Order: sequence, then C-alpha cells, then structure tokens
Amino acid sequence: MKLIALDSSGNVAAVAIFADGRILGEYRIDHKTTHSQTLLPMLSELCGRVDFAPAEADAIAVASGPGSFTGLRIGAAAAKGMAEALGIGILPVPTLEALCYCADEWKGVICPLLDARRSQVYSGIYRFSEEGSLQTLVPGEALPLGEQLERLEAYPEECLFLGDGSDAYRGALEERFGNKLHIARPHRRYQSAAAVCMRAGELGRGAIIKAEDFAPEYLRRSQAEREREERLKGEQA
Amino acid sequence: MKLIALDSSGNVAAVAIFADGRILGEYRIDHKTTHSQTLLPMLSELCGRVDFAPAEADAIAVASGPGSFTGLRIGAAAAKGMAEALGIGILPVPTLEALCYCADEWKGVICPLLDARRSQVYSGIYRFSEEGSLQTLVPGEALPLGEQLERLEAYPEECLFLGDGSDAYRGALEERFGNKLHIARPHRRYQSAAAVCMRAGELGRGAIIKAEDFAPEYLRRSQAEREREERLKGEQA
Repeated sequence: MKLIALDSSGNVAAVAIFADGRILGEYRIDHKTTHSQTLLPMLSELCGRVDFAPAEADAIAVASGPGSFTGLRIGAAAAKGMAEALGIGILPVPTLEALCYCADEWKGVICPLLDARRSQVYSGIYRFSEEGSLQTLVPGEALPLGEQLERLEAYPEECLFLGDGSDAYRGALEERFGNKLHIARPHRRYQSAAAVCMRAGELGRGAIIKAEDFAPEYLRRSQAEREREERLKGEQA
Repeated sequence: MKLIALDSSGNVAAVAIFADGRILGEYRIDHKTTHSQTLLPMLSELCGRVDFAPAEADAIAVASGPGSFTGLRIGAAAAKGMAEALGIGILPVPTLEALCYCADEWKGVICPLLDARRSQVYSGIYRFSEEGSLQTLVPGEALPLGEQLERLEAYPEECLFLGDGSDAYRGALEERFGNKLHIARPHRRYQSAAAVCMRAGELGRGAIIKAEDFAPEYLRRSQAEREREERLKGEQA
C-alpha cells in the first residue's frame, strides 16, 4: 500500500510518504505559519525529492481529529481535494491513535493530551500489547484533565504523556506525578505524519473510505456552534 | 542553544533545526539519490519554511559516525563548509548514540546495528537510565553480529534493535530471538536529524569543537585503505 499522509491537527504541519511498510520521507515543521500555506507546498517538495508521483498513492491518510478545528478543516480540505483529483479514497487516522505511534516502544499506558482550551484536553488512554498492536483502553474525548487523571488510576502501569497538552498542563502533571512523571522528549512529543503512516498501514486498506464520506472528528462542537446554541437558548428564555 | 543538524551516515538524508529544546522542523528522506545532491537543498528549504536564518545557529550538529564512508564524508564536508562560513563550531554526535534517541522510551537495552558490509555491523549497547540519561554499556565498534549477540547475553533485560543492520541481519536475529525479537517500527528504525538534535542538546555547548578539528569517526579503515595495505603486504612478501 502506498500512502500520502497529512497531519495538521495541531501546531505541527507534517506530510509523509509511505510505500509498502517504509517511510520514503517526512517533512515536519512546528512554526507559526498557517497550515493552509505550508501543507501542500511541503508535500509537493517532498514528492519531488523522493520521485513519488501522487498518482501512485492508494489513498490519502489524514489525521482525522481531534485537534485544532481550523487545522482539521485544512487537513480535510487538502485530503479531499487530492483524493478527488486522483480518484482515490481517504484513510482517516484518529489523531490520538497516531500520537501513540510516536512512543510505540513504551511499556505501560500512553496518554496523549491535546490542549482543547476551556480547561479541557482531548485525550484517550492506550497501550501497545505484547505483540505490538495498539489497544484503546479509554476512547478519545474532550474532558477536564483531572477527570482523565482519575481514570488513569485504574491502570497500575507507568504512564507516558505526549501531545501539546503535556506542555499546557505540565504544572498539574508535575504536581500529581512528581518524579514519576514521564513526558515524551520534544522530538517525539507532537504530531508526526510518519506516525500517521504507521497507524494507517496497520489499519490497512479496509479502513479506506470515499473522499466524499470523510469528515473530521472534532469530538466537540466548535466555539461558533456553542455560542450560537447559547444565544438561541438566551432568546428562548 | 540553536542548532542545525545533519545526518547522512546511512541511506537516510536528514536535516533538522533545534532551538532551545524544541525541534522547529525536520526533513528526512530515505531515497536512492546521493546525499551530496539533497542535504543542502533540503536544509535551505527547511530554513526558509520556518524562518530560520543559519546565522542564528550556535553550532552545526552532525552525525559523526560510524556509517557509510561516503555519507559521513558528505556530512562532514557540508557541516565544515557551513560552520566555517558562519564562524561557528561543530557538535559531533556519534551516530549510534543518536539512533538510540529514536527509541528513548524503551525500558531495556538498545542495540543499534548499522550494516558495515563484510559480515560486520557497527554496533554498541546502550540503555536509558531511570532518570532518562543515555548510558553506554559497550561502546560502538565494527564487529561480526555474532560477537555482539554474545555480549548482549550479559544483559538480562529485553533488547531493542534498530538501524539498517536490523534489516540486513533480520534472519539471524529471528533465529536467535524468535518471538522475543524487538525491532523498532520503520518510522523509528533509521537515522533521524531530530534524534541528532536531542542528543546534541543533551551533550550541550561543551561538546562543540572547532570546525577544523572535526573528522568523522569511521571506526575502521576504508576499503581503499585496506586494499592498499593488502597490496603493500603482497609486494613485501
């Protein structure tokens, strides 16, 4: 299986190319420029550099959420645009599952934390089995960090945190775990399109869907939707 | 500390930019093109993309060997050229130590294997301490795989293999370890400039040397040198 992979779900913009189990290349930046200006030029640069024609791809793998609303929309638009143009499908990869592949050698539970603002994180609890397959212990959702830390108490193993939420909530994590706190080093802490490729490769061809059927999984409503609902409630009251 | 990092010690060509503990970007390809044609254009692309002026760098971090002789020479030439032009030093990062940072959350020993041809590997044995610092248990050298596997028996922990030698010698590893064999997944198995950055950051400013004093650590003589010596021996006999 050959894949073009995109991750624009957070601050990192990342693209990668995957062919039959190997990463032909990854280009990843953590910079303030908007993903809409970087993602496709970076992909074009990378394809040229490794002599990969996008028409060779069997699908576009994309970090499907949760994450930044704008980032996810840009990723979805780019993925749909390419998939439609190439006549191929999309292989959605949940952002939190892909993040676990940044630390796939960790023995214990993995808790990716994405800063969801409003005192919440997007987070799930995962583990790689002895045989190396990813197990979802608690599926991803938006919730206060404190609630997720309570759930973690059910797992006696040591926990590795990663994602930008582990920066945003570092103080709270240090207070709770002290010198038992494990946060992935910065080169492995954030989104990676190579990690999206690896998860996509393991999900396999069966996970490819039609481009028109793809929509990001925000895991909660956008600020605009919430404000609209509150306004409507106010009007009704 | 701000660093430009290069790794051309193997098939992968990789560049990264590091600033005060963070990876601003990494560009990495695993393709047949020669590093002399890819490394500097990729770096130039990346610098532009993250608005990094090379003059901001405090040093050039470079995978210093072992590895491919040609690859190491290209990396050394590129690093020296840039360092001289910018009036800064070089921070040499042993290739095998950098590779360990591709799996820095592994609990157990780490054995990077680079295919050294002639039935040998470049390999050392390492471990991350409980506090997360890299410990060298057996320093890197060129030796037959079998000898390294015998040395590994002194360590009761599980071992993770990585590097292109884990592909080249996969059959022998499977025979020895059976279902206890652990090889890093492909997105983490090979050289990474982000990993060079992390190791360089931990080695710190004290490890920076003058560009003119830098030379790769080949760990054995080149084929041309060996052939010359054998020829001279033959002539003397």
